[in-house]
Amino acid sequence: MSEPNFQRIIPEGEDRERLTCAECGFIAYENPKIVVGAVVAEGERVLLCRRAIEPRRGFWTLPAGYMELGETVEEGALREAWEEAQARIATEGVLALYSIPRIGQVQVIFRAHLAVPGFAAGPESLEVRLFDWAEIPWEQLAFPTVHAALRRWHATRGQPLGAPVLETAGRFPGATSPQGV
Amino acid sequence: MSEPNFQRIIPEGEDRERLTCAECGFIAYENPKIVVGAVVAEGERVLLCRRAIEPRRGFWTLPAGYMELGETVEEGALREAWEEAQARIATEGVLALYSIPRIGQVQVIFRAHLAVPGFAAGPESLEVRLFDWAEIPWEQLAFPTVHAALRRWHATRGQPLGAPVLETAGRFPGATSPQGV
Repeated sequence: MSEPNFQRIIPEGEDRERLTCAECGFIAYENPKIVVGAVVAEGERVLLCRRAIEPRRGFWTLPAGYMELGETVEEGALREAWEEAQARIATEGVLALYSIPRIGQVQVIFRAHLAVPGFAAGPESLEVRLFDWAEIPWEQLAFPTVHAALRRWHATRGQPLGAPVLETAGRFPGATSPQGV
Repeated sequence: MSEPNFQRIIPEGEDRERLTCAECGFIAYENPKIVVGAVVAEGERVLLCRRAIEPRRGFWTLPAGYMELGETVEEGALREAWEEAQARIATEGVLALYSIPRIGQVQVIFRAHLAVPGFAAGPESLEVRLFDWAEIPWEQLAFPTVHAALRRWHATRGQPLGAPVLETAGRFPGATSPQGV
């Protein structure tokens, strides 16, 4: 078996460099990836998951992950809530849309609530729990977008959802974390 | 130069089939792709582009296209408006978020207006023009999401943007078009 041998060149008919295999000409298009997730509330409390995996193992995050083929953004958020927090949630609409151009990521974060009582740590979580607003472990959140989404949730809770906030990585407080997200 | 030879197998450490090159083991991850675009208004008129490329060559569409790495969703929408309609636009917020799971696509459609007067056909457009609502060539629109976004624009014009409408392909009138989008 040969090794892949990707080089950044401008293929014929393209207007920018693309990762192209010098052995066979295959172009590995690199597109931004979509992360789907939710701020899940039960009453005045929000659900957070403590990460069992890197990056940021041991830190708290929202149930969220890469959208897969064959699902809608909403279905992806429901799936991630189940996989990471064993929670059945109902979405209320899009709370925020975060672009993180440095790592080619777009995050679609829903406002949601528990549709049925109960949750538990999925395989990618060490622990899942509900936090009162005053208890949120701000210093132990995994990513700046978790901060931003929680603040947005708090500012809009109990109100009809307006247009989702649009933010980019450079504007997040704490955007100097290892992942920059 | 050898030929790429991709097969759908479950690579070691993965939980589902991935497109994998049998020659070199390269995994071509297939993720949903993001299309960014805008309903661009000038007063009561909206900007449409007649497609110079397949699919749906000769049909009318919104300025929209695949988001690239290194940009935000908003920057992508501005770039597409420039590339397809040589238009400088200002976005007002997210009008709609369309999931089209059958083709692995998520469309982020902004509400926008011309920031400076003027527009012209870019290389992918045969023609660009402003349409009064009563003039919109409904039978010659390229895709069901164009219908849906125009209707959403019309229903919310002049008002603050609320939460973006979320729709999936099956629910679009006319979703039986060749592309199903």
